[in-house]
Amino acid sequence: MRVAVIHGPNLQRIGKREPEVYGTDSLADVDEALSALAADLGVTLETIQSNHEGKIIDFISEAEARVDGFLINPGGLTHTSVVLRDALVGVDRPFVEVHLSNVTGREDFRRRSYLAPVAAGVVYGFGLQSYLLGLQGLVRRLTGASVS
Amino acid sequence: MRVAVIHGPNLQRIGKREPEVYGTDSLADVDEALSALAADLGVTLETIQSNHEGKIIDFISEAEARVDGFLINPGGLTHTSVVLRDALVGVDRPFVEVHLSNVTGREDFRRRSYLAPVAAGVVYGFGLQSYLLGLQGLVRRLTGASVS
Amino acid sequence: MRVAVIHGPNLQRIGKREPEVYGTDSLADVDEALSALAADLGVTLETIQSNHEGKIIDFISEAEARVDGFLINPGGLTHTSVVLRDALVGVDRPFVEVHLSNVTGREDFRRRSYLAPVAAGVVYGFGLQSYLLGLQGLVRRLTGASVS
Amino acid sequence: MRVAVIHGPNLQRIGKREPEVYGTDSLADVDEALSALAADLGVTLETIQSNHEGKIIDFISEAEARVDGFLINPGGLTHTSVVLRDALVGVDRPFVEVHLSNVTGREDFRRRSYLAPVAAGVVYGFGLQSYLLGLQGLVRRLTGASVS
Amino acid sequence: MRVAVIHGPNLQRIGKREPEVYGTDSLADVDEALSALAADLGVTLETIQSNHEGKIIDFISEAEARVDGFLINPGGLTHTSVVLRDALVGVDRPFVEVHLSNVTGREDFRRRSYLAPVAAGVVYGFGLQSYLLGLQGLVRRLTGASVS
Amino acid sequence: MRVAVIHGPNLQRIGKREPEVYGTDSLADVDEALSALAADLGVTLETIQSNHEGKIIDFISEAEARVDGFLINPGGLTHTSVVLRDALVGVDRPFVEVHLSNVTGREDFRRRSYLAPVAAGVVYGFGLQSYLLGLQGLVRRLTGASVS
Amino acid sequence: MRVAVIHGPNLQRIGKREPEVYGTDSLADVDEALSALAADLGVTLETIQSNHEGKIIDFISEAEARVDGFLINPGGLTHTSVVLRDALVGVDRPFVEVHLSNVTGREDFRRRSYLAPVAAGVVYGFGLQSYLLGLQGLVRRLTGASVS
Amino acid sequence: MRVAVIHGPNLQRIGKREPEVYGTDSLADVDEALSALAADLGVTLETIQSNHEGKIIDFISEAEARVDGFLINPGGLTHTSVVLRDALVGVDRPFVEVHLSNVTGREDFRRRSYLAPVAAGVVYGFGLQSYLLGLQGLVRRLTGASVS
Amino acid sequence: MRVAVIHGPNLQRIGKREPEVYGTDSLADVDEALSALAADLGVTLETIQSNHEGKIIDFISEAEARVDGFLINPGGLTHTSVVLRDALVGVDRPFVEVHLSNVTGREDFRRRSYLAPVAAGVVYGFGLQSYLLGLQGLVRRLTGASVS
Amino acid sequence: MRVAVIHGPNLQRIGKREPEVYGTDSLADVDEALSALAADLGVTLETIQSNHEGKIIDFISEAEARVDGFLINPGGLTHTSVVLRDALVGVDRPFVEVHLSNVTGREDFRRRSYLAPVAAGVVYGFGLQSYLLGLQGLVRRLTGASVS
Amino acid sequence: MRVAVIHGPNLQRIGKREPEVYGTDSLADVDEALSALAADLGVTLETIQSNHEGKIIDFISEAEARVDGFLINPGGLTHTSVVLRDALVGVDRPFVEVHLSNVTGREDFRRRSYLAPVAAGVVYGFGLQSYLLGLQGLVRRLTGASVS
Amino acid sequence: MRVAVIHGPNLQRIGKREPEVYGTDSLADVDEALSALAADLGVTLETIQSNHEGKIIDFISEAEARVDGFLINPGGLTHTSVVLRDALVGVDRPFVEVHLSNVTGREDFRRRSYLAPVAAGVVYGFGLQSYLLGLQGLVRRLTGASVS
Repeated sequence: MRVAVIHGPNLQRIGKREPEVYGTDSLADVDEALSALAADLGVTLETIQSNHEGKIIDFISEAEARVDGFLINPGGLTHTSVVLRDALVGVDRPFVEVHLSNVTGREDFRRRSYLAPVAAGVVYGFGLQSYLLGLQGLVRRLTGASVS
Repeated sequence: MRVAVIHGPNLQRIGKREPEVYGTDSLADVDEALSALAADLGVTLETIQSNHEGKIIDFISEAEARVDGFLINPGGLTHTSVVLRDALVGVDRPFVEVHLSNVTGREDFRRRSYLAPVAAGVVYGFGLQSYLLGLQGLVRRLTGASVS
Repeated sequence: MRVAVIHGPNLQRIGKREPEVYGTDSLADVDEALSALAADLGVTLETIQSNHEGKIIDFISEAEARVDGFLINPGGLTHTSVVLRDALVGVDRPFVEVHLSNVTGREDFRRRSYLAPVAAGVVYGFGLQSYLLGLQGLVRRLTGASVS
Repeated sequence: MRVAVIHGPNLQRIGKREPEVYGTDSLADVDEALSALAADLGVTLETIQSNHEGKIIDFISEAEARVDGFLINPGGLTHTSVVLRDALVGVDRPFVEVHLSNVTGREDFRRRSYLAPVAAGVVYGFGLQSYLLGLQGLVRRLTGASVS
Repeated sequence: MRVAVIHGPNLQRIGKREPEVYGTDSLADVDEALSALAADLGVTLETIQSNHEGKIIDFISEAEARVDGFLINPGGLTHTSVVLRDALVGVDRPFVEVHLSNVTGREDFRRRSYLAPVAAGVVYGFGLQSYLLGLQGLVRRLTGASVS
Repeated sequence: MRVAVIHGPNLQRIGKREPEVYGTDSLADVDEALSALAADLGVTLETIQSNHEGKIIDFISEAEARVDGFLINPGGLTHTSVVLRDALVGVDRPFVEVHLSNVTGREDFRRRSYLAPVAAGVVYGFGLQSYLLGLQGLVRRLTGASVS
Repeated sequence: MRVAVIHGPNLQRIGKREPEVYGTDSLADVDEALSALAADLGVTLETIQSNHEGKIIDFISEAEARVDGFLINPGGLTHTSVVLRDALVGVDRPFVEVHLSNVTGREDFRRRSYLAPVAAGVVYGFGLQSYLLGLQGLVRRLTGASVS
Repeated sequence: MRVAVIHGPNLQRIGKREPEVYGTDSLADVDEALSALAADLGVTLETIQSNHEGKIIDFISEAEARVDGFLINPGGLTHTSVVLRDALVGVDRPFVEVHLSNVTGREDFRRRSYLAPVAAGVVYGFGLQSYLLGLQGLVRRLTGASVS
Repeated sequence: MRVAVIHGPNLQRIGKREPEVYGTDSLADVDEALSALAADLGVTLETIQSNHEGKIIDFISEAEARVDGFLINPGGLTHTSVVLRDALVGVDRPFVEVHLSNVTGREDFRRRSYLAPVAAGVVYGFGLQSYLLGLQGLVRRLTGASVS
Repeated sequence: MRVAVIHGPNLQRIGKREPEVYGTDSLADVDEALSALAADLGVTLETIQSNHEGKIIDFISEAEARVDGFLINPGGLTHTSVVLRDALVGVDRPFVEVHLSNVTGREDFRRRSYLAPVAAGVVYGFGLQSYLLGLQGLVRRLTGASVS
Repeated sequence: MRVAVIHGPNLQRIGKREPEVYGTDSLADVDEALSALAADLGVTLETIQSNHEGKIIDFISEAEARVDGFLINPGGLTHTSVVLRDALVGVDRPFVEVHLSNVTGREDFRRRSYLAPVAAGVVYGFGLQSYLLGLQGLVRRLTGASVS
Repeated sequence: MRVAVIHGPNLQRIGKREPEVYGTDSLADVDEALSALAADLGVTLETIQSNHEGKIIDFISEAEARVDGFLINPGGLTHTSVVLRDALVGVDRPFVEVHLSNVTGREDFRRRSYLAPVAAGVVYGFGLQSYLLGLQGLVRRLTGASVS
């Protein structure tokens, strides 16, 4: 099983950026924890971080042939990108949307996610653990564990 | 560590009720899976299901003294109950909101959760696994794992 | 054929309560008229009135095994209760929503019914007769009379 | 007692038109069933179907002198015609609004009825039976049966 | 100078229809008063009343060649007819919109007039006098009296 | 009969101010034309212009004892002043609201008048003639000419 | 004179719950202060606290025969319960709505009260004193002191 | 293959009416160009223009038996007529909606088309060419050219 | 202790103005009752009534040095004046907002108060007693009685 | 004559991506058909596909000097990109917006196009044919065929 | 060159009023800094501060003859005064709107400025420097420096 | 002191693009004027223009270590980019938002800026001078001049 992990715009800065919102774990910390969990689960990861919506779209399109699902923290694109939604719907793979912070409790404009309605599931608010829980959820779905 | 699990209205029927939305696991299946996980995590659970908002409020108020956090699937109260929000905010314990289905992709009125903005985190869309992931997230938060 | 009749909150008071809105028939009058009509139609009724949303939810869940359909005047829950909607959708039985008054012509907040969009049909504004017409409509639907 | 029955635009096509929405009864079936019921109730009917709002307005204005009430399925005019509302309010006769389908559960723009707030009552969703129930409700109101 | 007077839907009934809203003058009273005023002003009138939007559109299109301006009480079409707006804008003649009642103080849906924003002027709320004042205003505009 | 004429804020500038919107007549022109018409109608006028909402409120309160009605062009206060509405409703005298321009066809915020719903009538868009028509309408109402 | 005091959901916790919002007085403190004031005013109180909407509705219906008015702090039901509004309107007794906190300055969803528009009066923001002031206001109204 | 062409209200006036919006081609020009194109495509046309919504509805209903599809410029009905939408959906034929002007860039109320969401396709803004392109699109769809 | 009492626009007319809304007490009655209560409470009052927003702002700014708090009935400014809100927030003194009528149950535009969210407390609907209750509430707050 | 064809984000995937929405033609099929049509029309095409908004903006800016107009399927950027609108308005060339699917009948967020209001024309819903019709429309406009 | 500087309501208090929002500079500090800058720029200033909208309107009207432009901090009138907008548009002079605080990041009701859309330019958020930058911008515009 | 200047999408075209909106100065003119001013102020600038949101985000993230603040004209991203807001908030440096045109007076969608609420200040509408004023404001803030 192979999963693509996508870190959207500005996530290269976590740990330094607004730690009261996003916590103090760096992206390297996240990736390391994900790798360890993936190893446990027998899953291969490939990971991308980009501030460029276009690169993320390119990646999703190309990765489809290689991967079984996507784990994505779309950052600020969550609330504004129809293009990203179209890309994820356009590949025949489930995806899970995660956020470090609990976006439902922040500014009004963060209440709308273009991705959530078409996601397999969402996990918000657990910091680094959002990724880990999201990966577990995605893998269980892919492996046929009862998820709905 | 002790966690209260709250199953809101109509959850007594899952497995039978709209299985294309809520899956085929029964509430007993959920509770059994939670018990097994709780045992693994060294957590004691106490569980309630009620169709009565008032009983849930009573329970939250009384359980505060005994428990470290709440795991709640508020069912349809999610979208309508300020009273439930007030109860959860009024006790000094973190809570995690879970849903079997991905409520963000259903009717418009399910887009608003009165609880999510004040939750420690949310997990939607993974069926029975939403509970398991939610419990993990809550426990990691309570045990000081980095969650934000 | 067996039909459950549900009188929601505050309906215990009709006849006395705002008679210019709800008329002068008491709940006993309604039940008597329903009984007579049910006898004519060869239908058995079981009836509940409660001011407790939770009791109504409990009742719907339990009655499913016994009844072929529901006739409900949800009172003020009409406009606020997702939980009641979920309960009625969650049992595999048609229901008809009735109101004594014509709720479409009253305060703005009465324009929204959470139940109507998922009802088999609605009858508003005929006072006691709303119940009788609603029961006829429900029975005709259950007996295969052409209803759409 | 004399009642005018008005079939609004596009109702000449029912039975053929979107049968999954409007059922398989033709307008002739509706009229025949109404005639039989009217005979039972001792009511005389006069019936019009028109796709022209103007003809319906003309008819309402002229019929006032002859009839005691109106039974109307306004079709798509329900949601758009202030003129029709004004015509019905402008004659001193009660009217009942009926729909074959349950319009509350269809497109958003069907949620608004200009007529319902000023109707004596409404019956939606019972197919051909909506007319029969509506006629009963109207007649009971005209004959002083307790309707509110 | 020649002016077309258009009485929209349901205006054939004024005097009888909701007199507390529209007053007790009949349409004949209005026309008589307009004729007298027109004679004083040296203006020729041609008058139409129709409940058919289509006839009014036909009339506007045909009358353009004969008349210098339009005086219109559009009735309920005021609030719903883009077609009527297009017809009036599409002929190169000024028009004045009048209403017997003060439509700004009635139901919310009467607050929007599709015609008013493209009218030369509006007069609401003076009953029969709305027409007389409207005709004066139109004539003064056509004769170059300072109107803006 | 005595009528108070109120010119609201910025009306001291008409003639010079945005003539493409408000025309080229000065306030003196308006007052002169009103005086001539008032003389014809046997009405005494008293006139005020103020840029101060407070002075206008004071005036309305004091003038009540002396006058039979008010003719008011409230200028920009039309769209923002609940205080002015309260003042006019609070005196037991009818008032007519006039505007030089057709405010219904300008910026969105000019679509709302706090005064119009409680006015006896409104006249918009005829420049100086709006005042003259408005005065006629007010006087006819005060003298019992049929106005609704 | 007899007044029913209703403490809605979550009020059993005041003093402990969010003291920066609700203050440090306990419900016992409130009840004691009310008792003292009632004694001064010669009023008999009967008091209920419940987290169950249904119990509050039952109480209002039953208490009507015994009491002259209601003093209610509806807690979170303020913003969501049409049923509670219907209950209070349905008994022929005035009621006063009080809140410890100034709900107008908190979350947006607290801006709407279903009860306030049909209350005799409202008092918000004075903590325990809101109850005392509210009781005074209710009593003065019941005793014919000039209140409007 | 046979196609019905429907010109809605006010289209009899194009060429003369607001040429800066609708261009200088007359309806005869449009029909002539359509005829030439139809001949090229081997399609028979039948054409109607009416200012009467009712006539257009009658026509659609009757034409269904004869034609394979509809090409319609609904004029101002586009934005207001649920009846027209129902008529077109109610016949089992594809239709294409065309406009001379680019309605998306005009007044706000022109942004909503009741027809577009249920059309096979839409062509706006090319003047006379909108019709020609629309006919081509409709024919290609009817002949199985890949259109989606 | 010294308290400033501010009566906003149009309050000079109470007793005469819309008595069914504002009651029959005059402003002198209000001031007399306030004086008596102030004497009881050992509070000195200074009182202003003005129809001029500007004078009220001037007063608030100047009075700050002399007074401990403000009791204000802002009249129609309640719903429209950001300037008044800024003035009251800008002085470091608590204020209480009172209304004779229950503004929450009147026109929609009265639902918004710019002042209430920044007030110490609000009292609406008790007529003259609103002032007395408001003064009590303000004084108790200033004297450290538990108010939240 | 030279026309630039722009395929926006995710269009590289058509044929494979959601064929029930976008059809089974690949982008190569579209380009081939466009080339054939362009040859017929004597037009030179240059074509770009990119998932990067920035590259599309760069291209529009650079291509201005070479091309006479733009044919663009903006994909998901249609609904979100002010930048793309600004780029197209900022070059002095007409453009036509095309979509494979009928975007007016899909999710609500697809109802808004930032481009359509400033386009020369739009063609939606004809699959591959949308491009061909759009190119024809653009060329006819550029060659002076009557288009409005 | 001569510029009028207008300080709106409550600005007499800056320095003391909410210093965390408006800073610690007094109005005298602002005026002194403006004077110094004006001297440098060779501009004569005349300055007014008023809490009375009416006085500001009077001033604008009278100052038109003397000044070349206006620099205005309208305070809370920014968000509510159509009258002030009309006054500034009605004089044929450019104006610049400044605010000490960044009003775009405060309460929702501060997001709307009636003045900004018709201003020559706006400067928000730089405290005292907003005035200085605004004066520079105004002067450069008046002296023909390239400003757009 | 070092400041980064960011020119967003489409700004490479100013001078040529819509000069009636954006003026006739080219981007080179802007940069030259900024350089001269920076030299006067003793500030070092580094400047970027990009049509790629992603490049701008990359730049902000990298530049943080080198610069003391940002001066940004975000072009069309102003109204749509949460990602850009997050990037600017995520670096611990103040920024000033400038626009050549007065965006508050253009299309509705330009009324919302995602950046303005979190900016140190904004300057709109002065063309090239907006940049110069914005740089001054930023520098004064960075150097401790009183700015709020």
